[in-house]
Amino acid sequence: MRTQVAIIGSGPAGLLLGQLLHKAGIDSVILERRSRDYVLSRIRAGVLEDGTVSLLDAVGASARLHAEGLPHDGFELLFGGRRHRIDLQRLTGRRVTIYGQTELTRDLMDLRAASGATTIFEAEDVALHDFDGGKPHVTFSKGGTAQRLDCDFIAGCDGYHGVSRASVPADAMQLFERTYPFGWLGILADVPPVSHELVYAGDDSGFALCSMRSPSRSRYYVQCGLDEDVANWSDERFWDELRRRLDPATAEALVTGPSIEKSIAPLRSFVAEPMRFGRLFLAGDAAHIVPPTGAKGLNLAASDVHYLSQALIEYFNERSQAGIDAYSARALARVWKAERFSWWLTSLMHHFPQDNPFIRRIQRAELDYLVSSDHAMAALAENYVGLPY
Amino acid sequence: MRTQVAIIGSGPAGLLLGQLLHKAGIDSVILERRSRDYVLSRIRAGVLEDGTVSLLDAVGASARLHAEGLPHDGFELLFGGRRHRIDLQRLTGRRVTIYGQTELTRDLMDLRAASGATTIFEAEDVALHDFDGGKPHVTFSKGGTAQRLDCDFIAGCDGYHGVSRASVPADAMQLFERTYPFGWLGILADVPPVSHELVYAGDDSGFALCSMRSPSRSRYYVQCGLDEDVANWSDERFWDELRRRLDPATAEALVTGPSIEKSIAPLRSFVAEPMRFGRLFLAGDAAHIVPPTGAKGLNLAASDVHYLSQALIEYFNERSQAGIDAYSARALARVWKAERFSWWLTSLMHHFPQDNPFIRRIQRAELDYLVSSDHAMAALAENYVGLPY
Repeated sequence: MRTQVAIIGSGPAGLLLGQLLHKAGIDSVILERRSRDYVLSRIRAGVLEDGTVSLLDAVGASARLHAEGLPHDGFELLFGGRRHRIDLQRLTGRRVTIYGQTELTRDLMDLRAASGATTIFEAEDVALHDFDGGKPHVTFSKGGTAQRLDCDFIAGCDGYHGVSRASVPADAMQLFERTYPFGWLGILADVPPVSHELVYAGDDSGFALCSMRSPSRSRYYVQCGLDEDVANWSDERFWDELRRRLDPATAEALVTGPSIEKSIAPLRSFVAEPMRFGRLFLAGDAAHIVPPTGAKGLNLAASDVHYLSQALIEYFNERSQAGIDAYSARALARVWKAERFSWWLTSLMHHFPQDNPFIRRIQRAELDYLVSSDHAMAALAENYVGLPY
Repeated sequence: MRTQVAIIGSGPAGLLLGQLLHKAGIDSVILERRSRDYVLSRIRAGVLEDGTVSLLDAVGASARLHAEGLPHDGFELLFGGRRHRIDLQRLTGRRVTIYGQTELTRDLMDLRAASGATTIFEAEDVALHDFDGGKPHVTFSKGGTAQRLDCDFIAGCDGYHGVSRASVPADAMQLFERTYPFGWLGILADVPPVSHELVYAGDDSGFALCSMRSPSRSRYYVQCGLDEDVANWSDERFWDELRRRLDPATAEALVTGPSIEKSIAPLRSFVAEPMRFGRLFLAGDAAHIVPPTGAKGLNLAASDVHYLSQALIEYFNERSQAGIDAYSARALARVWKAERFSWWLTSLMHHFPQDNPFIRRIQRAELDYLVSSDHAMAALAENYVGLPY
C-alpha cells in the first residue's frame, strides 16, 4: 500500500490533518490502533477557539458544530465569594464554541468516510521505519495479516502514549515536563448547567470548574488529591464538595443528578522538542500535553495540523521544502505560549498543598488585579480565545 | 513633649508623612535612630511613579526632582539577544521619573527643617507604649537624657529592622514571606549609562539591570549567588559578567570605570498584616518588603503614607474614625498588588538555580508573549508606572 502521508491516529488531530490534505488533493491513510467505537467513546473537553472553528469550516466539518455547539461570549472567575465575568467578546471581539470533542471526532470521521479516504482501524503492531531516510514506511498488522504502508511523510497524531514519539531515539529529543500535585475529579450528568457560561472557581478550598456539553448535559470538576480513589466519591459527596467551592447563590442554583461518568485525571505539562524528525512530524498530544485548565489541548492539535498541512501542501504542490523546515519552530512558538497560559491559569486557580501563605495571598492579589484591569483581562481573554496562528 | 503624630523614622515614608500632615495643620515629631548624615549616606534606587511625584508636588518637595530627575517614557526588556522597548507613554499615557532616593530624602529633610517641624536624630532606645490604649507615647534617650513624647498616634516608618513592627505582639500579626535563591550585586560608577532608559536583561546566564542616577552616574546590577562575597568581585570581573548578560551591541556600548560603591543585597518579599494596631500604624518597609525588580519599595511607602495622611486628616479635621479604620485594608490592597507584580517580574527575569528546564522555557515563552501582545505589555506598563491609589 502506498500513500503520500501516513497519519498515525484517528483523533481530531489526525482526522483534521487528513481533511486539510484531502482538500488540497493530497492523499493520506490513517492507521488507528483502536476501533472506531472505542475512539468515539472517549470523553474529552470541547472549548473550541475560533481559529479551530475556522479550520473545521475550511474542511466542511462544521455544520453540526454550528447547529448544536454553544457559542460563548465570556466565562466567569469565581473567588472571594463572587463571580467576575470575563467578557471575551468585548475584550477581543471573539468568542469560543462549546462542542464536545467526541462529537467533533464523529463529524470528522463521517466526513472522511464520505470523502473515500482510507482509515484502517484496529491496526496492530504499528511500527515506523526509515523516517530519517528516503523510504519512510509504516508496518502494521490487521486481522492477523502483516501489512506495509509506503509514504512520503509520516504524521504522528497518536497522542501522548502513541508509537510515534516513542519511535524517535531518546537522544534526538529534549523533553520538558511539569507535574502538578493534584488531579481533577470530573463528573458528567444529564442536568442543566448551573450557568450558561463556564465558571472557573479558585477559592481556598480548591479549584472547581462548572462546564457543560449541551443545555441539558453538564460537566463538573473539582480539584482532588492525586492519591484519591474515584470509588470513594459517591455522587452525593461530589456534589457536596462542588457546592462548597461555589458562592452561595451558585451553589443554591446547582441542579444535581446521577453521574453518567466519573473519573480522576492527573494534570501534566509536557513538551517534546523538536516536532519534526526527518520525514516524521509530531502533532497534538503526541508532542505536548497541557493541563486542561486553559482548554488548549484540542486547539493546539488544530494549530499544529494547520501548520503541518500548510507545510505539506507547499511541499507537494509547490515543491518547496521551506514549510517543512519551519514546521517545528512555528508550531513550538505557539505551543509554548499555550503551555505558558495553561501553566499560569493552573497555578493561579488551584490550591497547591505545599504553597506557603505568601503564595496564596499572591494568587488572590493576582485575581483581584485581573478583574480590576482591562489590560490584564484582555491578556487573559486573548489567550483564552486563542493567540493568532 | 507632646505632638499629634509621633513618626518613627526619617526615611522618605516618615518625612513625606510629616509634610502631608504639616500641610493639613497637623503637628508631628520625627524620631530617628541614626544621624542625619547616616540617613543621607544610604544608597537606594529611585524610580518614582507619577503618583509618588504628585504627592511630592503636593507638599512642595519636587522642585529639584523636576529640575534634575530624569523622566522616562519607557524601559527595555533584553532577552534572546534582543532589546524590546516597553513604551510606557504609549501604553499608559504615563511615565516614571528617575531620581535617587538619597536626593529625595535630602529634599524632604530640607523642607521639614524649613517648616520648623521637629526631627530628633540619634534618638536612642526608642520604645513605643500604650498604642493599644488611650495614652500612646514614645520614650527614647537623646544625648544620655531620657525623654517622653506623648501623642495621639504613632506612625511606624522605620523600616524592616525598626522598632515599630517589633513592638507589636507576635500573635497580633500574620507574616508572609518569600526569599529568593539569589542576590543582586550592584555597582555605582561615574560613567554615562549604556542606555538612556533602564534595561532589564533576563537571559540564561541570569538577570542584569542597567540603571542610572543621572546622565553621568550609572547603577548596574547582576544576579549573583546568595553565598557570594563582594570581596571576590573586582570591578573588572563585574563588568565582564555584566557584558556577558547583554546583547553584543549593548555590551559593546558599555562604558566602564571604577566603582564608587559595590554591594550584594538579598531579595525578599515580606508582608505583615494588619498595618494598624490601635493607635500605631505601620507604613513602608516597616510593614512590607518587595524585591527591587519592580522598583516598588519607595512607591509603596508613598502610597501607604498617602492613605495614612488622609486617615489622620479625617480624624483630626473632621473627627471621623472611618479613614483610620479603613487604613490597613486600603493600604494592603495596593501593597499586595505591588507584591504580586514584584514577585512576578522577579520570577520572570531571574535564573532560578533549582528550576527545571520546563520553567526556563515558560519564562522565555512569557517574555515572547509579552512583547508580542499590546494587552500584556499594557498590563506590565500599568503596574510599572503604578496602579491607581
